[in-house]
Amino acid sequence: MTIAQHFATRTNRMKASEIRELLKLLDRPGILSFAGGIPDADLFPAEAFAKACAEILAESPGAALQYSVSEGYPPLRAWIANHMTGLGIPCGPDNILITSGSQQALDYLGKLFLSPGDTALVGWPTYLGALGAFNAYEPRYDRLDLTANRSAEFIRATAEAAGSTVKFAYLSPDFANPTGETLDAAHRNRLLDMAQDLDCAIIEDTAYQALRYEGEDIPPVLALELARTGNLDACRTIYCGSFSKTLSPGLRVGWVVAAQPIIKQLVLLKQAADLHSPSLNQMAVHRVAESCFDTHLPTVRAAYRTRRDAMLDALQQHMPPGVSWTRPQGGMFIWLTLPQGSSATRLLARAIETFDLAFVPGRAFFADGSQDNTLRLSFSCATPAEIQTGMERLAQALKTL
Amino acid sequence: MTIAQHFATRTNRMKASEIRELLKLLDRPGILSFAGGIPDADLFPAEAFAKACAEILAESPGAALQYSVSEGYPPLRAWIANHMTGLGIPCGPDNILITSGSQQALDYLGKLFLSPGDTALVGWPTYLGALGAFNAYEPRYDRLDLTANRSAEFIRATAEAAGSTVKFAYLSPDFANPTGETLDAAHRNRLLDMAQDLDCAIIEDTAYQALRYEGEDIPPVLALELARTGNLDACRTIYCGSFSKTLSPGLRVGWVVAAQPIIKQLVLLKQAADLHSPSLNQMAVHRVAESCFDTHLPTVRAAYRTRRDAMLDALQQHMPPGVSWTRPQGGMFIWLTLPQGSSATRLLARAIETFDLAFVPGRAFFADGSQDNTLRLSFSCATPAEIQTGMERLAQALKTL
Repeated sequence: MTIAQHFATRTNRMKASEIRELLKLLDRPGILSFAGGIPDADLFPAEAFAKACAEILAESPGAALQYSVSEGYPPLRAWIANHMTGLGIPCGPDNILITSGSQQALDYLGKLFLSPGDTALVGWPTYLGALGAFNAYEPRYDRLDLTANRSAEFIRATAEAAGSTVKFAYLSPDFANPTGETLDAAHRNRLLDMAQDLDCAIIEDTAYQALRYEGEDIPPVLALELARTGNLDACRTIYCGSFSKTLSPGLRVGWVVAAQPIIKQLVLLKQAADLHSPSLNQMAVHRVAESCFDTHLPTVRAAYRTRRDAMLDALQQHMPPGVSWTRPQGGMFIWLTLPQGSSATRLLARAIETFDLAFVPGRAFFADGSQDNTLRLSFSCATPAEIQTGMERLAQALKTL
Repeated sequence: MTIAQHFATRTNRMKASEIRELLKLLDRPGILSFAGGIPDADLFPAEAFAKACAEILAESPGAALQYSVSEGYPPLRAWIANHMTGLGIPCGPDNILITSGSQQALDYLGKLFLSPGDTALVGWPTYLGALGAFNAYEPRYDRLDLTANRSAEFIRATAEAAGSTVKFAYLSPDFANPTGETLDAAHRNRLLDMAQDLDCAIIEDTAYQALRYEGEDIPPVLALELARTGNLDACRTIYCGSFSKTLSPGLRVGWVVAAQPIIKQLVLLKQAADLHSPSLNQMAVHRVAESCFDTHLPTVRAAYRTRRDAMLDALQQHMPPGVSWTRPQGGMFIWLTLPQGSSATRLLARAIETFDLAFVPGRAFFADGSQDNTLRLSFSCATPAEIQTGMERLAQALKTL
């Protein structure tokens, strides 16, 4: 068949990930995998969802099973507006779009801003799924690094030299996937300054924001910008939220908060792309959020905190000198840096083959595939005992390198 | 705010539809709207969905609320494979992708094939939502007309003259939205010949296929192609199916059946765009399809058939000479052609203002916005009495033109 020769040019950048293919093979019993990074299904408020679905399908089955508006279910948008106010971002329902998970928000934002060759600033490393979403729109990537000396001027000049315009900076400021690191308020303000200099948007991915285990909350980038402008509709930051890490990922409910001109255009994109997110799912998430978001969250945090502590302890105990790692205050991930010249890709092959152990090699998270001496561990789905055994195995695998 | 100046070029083609905005105003009591084209919520198997959700959330809440694979829920894909076999398209689960409604399939297929300027062949008129989905990828449109003398050679030459390549032909062969018309087997075969000559794909949108009220089923285009090639993986036709018109639109579950190289690339696109369609929804649709798809369908067909008959009767009774209309054997729509020079857009304004009546002017369904003397009526959500009154009002409105 010759049809595949007629695929759009974007498909050249959308290949199956080697690593994802490798990790697919990990179903065999006995393997300890710290690769996944998904939430623990035992922590979902399953009874609350069962009750919510039963009530909704008894009380208003027509609405739950019928088409609905592209913007999203109004009571859920009202709940989110109230939730955002609690985060320092007072907003109305017209500033909110419901998406099918925050992954869909990233796809739509790539679609909204990127023509081929436009520049997206991303972390080095950054969330793999953001690169995947943006790749479909054939951008050029440059490095977002607020700690080093990469001025707006330098970034703009480099883009211009490549015939490109910087469209947005993407980041996950809290307990980022993959590093677990958090951007402090001073750096969030530096980001705002830089975006203003570049006149570009900021995409703030807050997937893990609610999962803080210690320390004080830092205001979202959008809250800091709102404090400057006093008007959400004048803000350049686009906040992407998700219920995936707090209530349920499988229902695919996330949201975007942004200036109305951005939301309006995103609504048109969503209408054209999938009409709307499923009605029942939005209604169920609304009911469960109303009934138990605030009371459920401490349970989730306590469980993951124990696992994070277990992994930090086990790393301290087992890692050889020369290996360093992050100490996240929340989220699901710890990021390891092996001695220069080590290959985490080779380590993974060895770990799977000989030690029944899996993780994700770090280079997958770099837009240029560099820094193969890094790796990501997730503690979200393992017991403390599994974590202890896993880190012992990791130490043994490291010895064989 | 200046950010909106930085939107991608594609947003120039994604504007709010005037007509959609107009129709938003139709909530006022007393208005008779034949504009919508959505299924009747009273016909959804609500009890079966309530039972399915209750069982799923009791038996396997973890799976229902957790992330799942981008390809789709395996038992649902197996059910669909069996269903497709019944339609003359034997296939395996590897030929099937679950999408969030068939609208999402159209978005992904635009994304898969279209680089800016590529040609998409569409009906004149065609489904408005297909134009919306494809517009995001900035195609050139040309007319797919299998009844007139538009040879593959002519279409190719015209495209080449515009520096373009024909990537696919899109059509809804059964009871199409907006015309209600069905393509006979001879024309489906002509389409296959033309697509072969052009070496382009065929996108077969079967949203209404199951809603036949009289006459014999015609084999899907993909079934006819499979009969020629003997090998689904050598077929160029991409079949888009949906549960929206048979079970529920609000759950957003549809599917694509195609050659494996196409499905594989679509899976990558979906992974990057929204990870997967909601787990609970796929599981619920699977259970309900297993338990009552075949027994539920006759109820749905009987209800819509009565309404179609009522509308055809009322049109016959009330329409003045010079107005003609289609006589669909299924689906939800009847297409009216007014005398040359009439404007259905002006008629709509008059109908809303003076006669508490709404429909969709036909020009919205033409890629070039032409043929304003046409309009679409939907009979799916009106009672026979409402249809009778509505067509009387339409006749009165026509008199004022």
